[in-house]
Amino acid sequence: MEGNSKPVEEQCRDQTGAVDGEEHDPERNSLHEPLLKRSPTLTSNQLAMVGAKVSHIESLDYEINENNLFKHDWRSRSRVEVLQYIALKWTLAFLVGLLTGVIASLINLAIENIQGLKMLTVVDFINQKRYITGFAYFTGVNLTLTLVAAFLCVMFAPTAAGPGIPEIKAYLNGVDTPNMFGASTLIVKIIGSIAAVAAGLDLGKEGPLVHIGTCIAALLGRGGTEKHHLRWKWLRYFNNDRDRRDLITCGASSGVCAAFRSPVGGVLFALEEVATWWRSALLWRTFFSTAVVVVVLRGFMEYCNSGRCGLFGRGGLILFDVSSVTVKYHPMDLVPVAVIGIIGGVLGSLYNYLLLKVLRLYSLINEKGRLYKLLLSLGVSLFTSVCLYSFPFLVPCSRCEPSLLNDGICPTNGRTGNFKQFNCPAGYYNDLASLLHSANDDAVRNIFSTSTPTEFLPISLLIFFAIYCILGLVTFGIAVPSGLFLPIILMGSAYGRLLGLAMGSYTNIDQGLYAVLGAASLMSGSMRMTVSLCVIFLELTNNLLLLPITMLVLLISKTVGDCFNPSIYEIILELKGLPFLDAKPETWMRNLTVGDLAAAKPNVVSLQGIEKVARVLEVLKESNHNGFPVVDRDVGMTELQGLVLRAHLITVLRKKWFLPERRRTEEWEVREKFTSVDLAEKARKIEEIELTEEDMEMYIDLHPFTNATPYTVVESMSVAKAVVLFREVGLRHLLIVPKYQAAGVSSTK
Amino acid sequence: MEGNSKPVEEQCRDQTGAVDGEEHDPERNSLHEPLLKRSPTLTSNQLAMVGAKVSHIESLDYEINENNLFKHDWRSRSRVEVLQYIALKWTLAFLVGLLTGVIASLINLAIENIQGLKMLTVVDFINQKRYITGFAYFTGVNLTLTLVAAFLCVMFAPTAAGPGIPEIKAYLNGVDTPNMFGASTLIVKIIGSIAAVAAGLDLGKEGPLVHIGTCIAALLGRGGTEKHHLRWKWLRYFNNDRDRRDLITCGASSGVCAAFRSPVGGVLFALEEVATWWRSALLWRTFFSTAVVVVVLRGFMEYCNSGRCGLFGRGGLILFDVSSVTVKYHPMDLVPVAVIGIIGGVLGSLYNYLLLKVLRLYSLINEKGRLYKLLLSLGVSLFTSVCLYSFPFLVPCSRCEPSLLNDGICPTNGRTGNFKQFNCPAGYYNDLASLLHSANDDAVRNIFSTSTPTEFLPISLLIFFAIYCILGLVTFGIAVPSGLFLPIILMGSAYGRLLGLAMGSYTNIDQGLYAVLGAASLMSGSMRMTVSLCVIFLELTNNLLLLPITMLVLLISKTVGDCFNPSIYEIILELKGLPFLDAKPETWMRNLTVGDLAAAKPNVVSLQGIEKVARVLEVLKESNHNGFPVVDRDVGMTELQGLVLRAHLITVLRKKWFLPERRRTEEWEVREKFTSVDLAEKARKIEEIELTEEDMEMYIDLHPFTNATPYTVVESMSVAKAVVLFREVGLRHLLIVPKYQAAGVSSTK
Repeated sequence: MEGNSKPVEEQCRDQTGAVDGEEHDPERNSLHEPLLKRSPTLTSNQLAMVGAKVSHIESLDYEINENNLFKHDWRSRSRVEVLQYIALKWTLAFLVGLLTGVIASLINLAIENIQGLKMLTVVDFINQKRYITGFAYFTGVNLTLTLVAAFLCVMFAPTAAGPGIPEIKAYLNGVDTPNMFGASTLIVKIIGSIAAVAAGLDLGKEGPLVHIGTCIAALLGRGGTEKHHLRWKWLRYFNNDRDRRDLITCGASSGVCAAFRSPVGGVLFALEEVATWWRSALLWRTFFSTAVVVVVLRGFMEYCNSGRCGLFGRGGLILFDVSSVTVKYHPMDLVPVAVIGIIGGVLGSLYNYLLLKVLRLYSLINEKGRLYKLLLSLGVSLFTSVCLYSFPFLVPCSRCEPSLLNDGICPTNGRTGNFKQFNCPAGYYNDLASLLHSANDDAVRNIFSTSTPTEFLPISLLIFFAIYCILGLVTFGIAVPSGLFLPIILMGSAYGRLLGLAMGSYTNIDQGLYAVLGAASLMSGSMRMTVSLCVIFLELTNNLLLLPITMLVLLISKTVGDCFNPSIYEIILELKGLPFLDAKPETWMRNLTVGDLAAAKPNVVSLQGIEKVARVLEVLKESNHNGFPVVDRDVGMTELQGLVLRAHLITVLRKKWFLPERRRTEEWEVREKFTSVDLAEKARKIEEIELTEEDMEMYIDLHPFTNATPYTVVESMSVAKAVVLFREVGLRHLLIVPKYQAAGVSSTK
Repeated sequence: MEGNSKPVEEQCRDQTGAVDGEEHDPERNSLHEPLLKRSPTLTSNQLAMVGAKVSHIESLDYEINENNLFKHDWRSRSRVEVLQYIALKWTLAFLVGLLTGVIASLINLAIENIQGLKMLTVVDFINQKRYITGFAYFTGVNLTLTLVAAFLCVMFAPTAAGPGIPEIKAYLNGVDTPNMFGASTLIVKIIGSIAAVAAGLDLGKEGPLVHIGTCIAALLGRGGTEKHHLRWKWLRYFNNDRDRRDLITCGASSGVCAAFRSPVGGVLFALEEVATWWRSALLWRTFFSTAVVVVVLRGFMEYCNSGRCGLFGRGGLILFDVSSVTVKYHPMDLVPVAVIGIIGGVLGSLYNYLLLKVLRLYSLINEKGRLYKLLLSLGVSLFTSVCLYSFPFLVPCSRCEPSLLNDGICPTNGRTGNFKQFNCPAGYYNDLASLLHSANDDAVRNIFSTSTPTEFLPISLLIFFAIYCILGLVTFGIAVPSGLFLPIILMGSAYGRLLGLAMGSYTNIDQGLYAVLGAASLMSGSMRMTVSLCVIFLELTNNLLLLPITMLVLLISKTVGDCFNPSIYEIILELKGLPFLDAKPETWMRNLTVGDLAAAKPNVVSLQGIEKVARVLEVLKESNHNGFPVVDRDVGMTELQGLVLRAHLITVLRKKWFLPERRRTEEWEVREKFTSVDLAEKARKIEEIELTEEDMEMYIDLHPFTNATPYTVVESMSVAKAVVLFREVGLRHLLIVPKYQAAGVSSTK
């Protein structure tokens, strides 16, 4: 061993390597020959999967970086500062809820007014039998609105397109998609979402609202945008990824809450679907945010109820209220309920499958340039307009029930009524027009309506279902902010209601409830959430008695769907190449030790505690790792000092804090020069650093910046257990230490 | 280093040492002089706290014990067996839900019938003005029922007394209280709970139902009781603590669900309050169990609605339905709501404080013997009867509203009516009797009743509040199964309604809602749950519009309560000496490294991979550790093999699987002798093992039984981070490895 300099075999893995749950890439290269033994059970094809797809997005740091500076900073905090920090956390959570609630209210207000005006004009044209003019107006307005949404997205914030939920999921799992949570994204998302929904496209504002909530949280957490950096003194304690992640979790919950007016559902959504890591304290703060959102929404609706919001409608705190119906069911009714669940599972996974195909096709088109993106969006808008406008002409008119007649005319207020007259004579209504010629929310409300067994003709529901299946597939991928929830609810409710119609008198359950269950089953079949979805549906429909059968449906359709493919979010994550670490390790991981993994890709670069500037620069330039183990080598033994981050190394180089000779620094020396705030700054590029020849010959003492307490595993640990550790503790790097320990260190030291 | 045999300093910590969140005990002793350096920041009083209170209950193993046998067993499982395992998990979750639902239904049925009969007879006596006879009958029945409950508890299952929730919390945190989940406990809990609640004591069946759910789960998971061990083949895969813990989580959720008919609340209760470790898959399975419970309860209630259940009353799926009321509130109403929250927090923590005093006093009495326990219970029962019977005579009679009169008599069906005539003339009612002379559930329903602003006199509410404050304090500690939820709801609703009365016309909120909010605030102030409590209240009261203000109240009262003392469950946990690891590490832990901890209590005992029988026996006898690091020492270096459990060592000794010479065994040799089922067996006592002199000279190869992949931390890790790891991954042992690594192992091997 005498002075042998090749002793330690630390492996450093970066969570960014975690590509679609297969395995977090063991980002490393051993400096020397591998010490670890290969296990005989290792087959080459398992190792081939490892690191096959490495994402180059830098991952976030959720671990407490316990370096000397942090420790000093933490120790020097007074009690007042700690209280300030706690107060700040709660204030920010409050602000997230408040702003999300206000923005959600304004979005609703804008959408309902724009869409209402459009619909009223169209109804006028139709009443005058000017069908062609009506069509031209309808299509024209829709195209214009789509153009606005798509133009903004394409030109200013491409990341604002789509729902944003997969990226949020990735962020909370540790991967920050660039430009995802900026101010421009937020603004484009708000305007684009209003325009896209008002354009009558088959998309919802729910997903975008979640994204908006997280954007607000991210901006608050950073204290403003990158460009106009607000240097709020208190925010210095928020200069870490952990606190920002917590705040963004609050933002996501607030968004869900604002979208569905479902505070508990919002919290559970974040817990079940989005976050990979959770604490009871966070649960509580998240809940606080959603409570604020609900209060804001409620206040807004009370204000609007007095008619001061223009065409803003009857939307209350409960979106699709079905509480009026008494749910009564016979044990025999569980059979059709189970059938709904099975169909929902099959259809949901089929939808996932087809959507993936469409998205692949669209990405080919979108790659051709911005113009193509715009044209695609406009094409979809045109197609939507044609479908929505023309199909109601194909179905026969139905006679209104006499009891509902109001001066010989079916009750309709032009926007939200269940019975649109459309092209029919007085006393008759066009049931398909009631669904297609209204806002998506109203369509859902209509199709959920209970105690109306004869309102919809089977042919209308069939056409509705078919249209929305096609629209749901073609609309999602275009370059506008789009949510997935509403299209799926529309599709699901249609087939649920159809099934209810088909069951006829064999069932005791109301057709409206069939529609609700159909929507739930399709969502569960496609998105594979159960608990949060159940609570969201509970809060959407305000009917607790529905709970047991909703649960049954959700469980069945999730189980069925899981047999075919992963959830839609996971599919999108994979498509976007965003890494995601699955909660459950794959079975092959049990047969592989982390030592095998390290041996298979031996490219860890380690640094010494006191390193030459030239060497640090070389290491930073020649590798793209974001963390380096720091190992002090002494005669006869080595000492693991910890892990140093690329970002911190770059900061040190940029600040040129070099030593003329190879020595350890005193704590006060470091503290004079650096604060923990410096280290929390965003990393610059290595290319920006300019060093003289003289600098290159100097030394850096890495000890003060080194996270002295990285999590470690012994080489014989199975990959499965390491993955569990990685995910449960929310890690970015994991060092692999050998199981061979220094023998008799005490005797040499 | 040459052959020096004192190289490795692994420390092994046992979670059982975790005493009330202070620190899990670093159970260890170094064989040799400490290698780890002391940190200069270390103060002696911090270390003095460590391990000050060590619990001697063996902790559970939630870690996957990756030894050779396990690995082989796992690899040899066929696809069919894996599917069987999954099917088994779901079947057991189903059975837990089913049985919990059925038992809860039967308990409800029994309580309502016994109590109903008792009440009817008392009403008869009172109608005949035979007040003394009525009192004698009332007291006599109550004393008899209390005697039954207390006798069963004292004689057959002392662990059945109390709510059981703290013990469940401890179990899911890794500490198995002896005899907590046995068959006798289950039976005593069921009968005792029926008798105690029917005796009119101020306690609920909610806590016991949670305990009953977990007992069912534990019995199913073990495949029967210890004595009549059912050897069901499939259950061999359930022979580990992890799967049992998951099932018990399902049981706890089912219990909460059965208690409050609140499926989502049940899941969240387990998530927030009980479990320290959580996975999405478990969330789903738990949810399934609660769904089954709800379906069973619903079926039972439908059946009883047709009058086939004797006196079983109007209890629907919603316990205390307040959905009929339209919640309208002005922003100004938030002030009284906040006041309720603050009062709830103060009262809740005061209650916790006083209850602790009472419990300390009671434990002095209870320690004197069984007879004292019985007498205490009977005394409390007598006091309760006197209070409940006599106080209604003190309040004036109120005149029924004419609109409610039914043939000149106030509406009362003798049991659940709001307006009990009691000692009043016809057309009048005694409001306090409506509250005191009814089952606890009915009392809550009465006090929650809405749109009845003049029903209760302030004096009656004040007396009611005072009585239940005293009863709530004196009843909890007696030796019968008792839940804490209902007493707190009763107290809270009384002061809430009082506050509503006091507010009078200054508020828009109904008095019934004040009562609901008061109950919520006191529960939050005492139990400190927020999310799950909110959902439970949502499901209890079936009114979504109440949600925002409920949230506000819960948040405020939890915050206020947290300023004074920990939650009631934590207080009971501490009182019972059950260790519990808090989610949030204490601040002083950041200043301490695990190395310091190891140095402060250096008593780890480590074994070699191949060890003499005599040495193993000596180690087992002389230490009470439950895990031992296995370290192979070779010339010039050591190799960490892993961790071996006491239970496995005892099994090996008992099976006398010894080797005549010091050698490694082949895998097939081990497999011939042992299966993983053997290792999963409950540990015997070391005293039961008899070994000959000859045996003692033989060797044991520990490698096949050693968990080769224990979680490890480097000595420089701060205790705070280690605690997070301990809790997040659900550990029992954590090895501390030195940061000094073997230098140049490759050159010597």
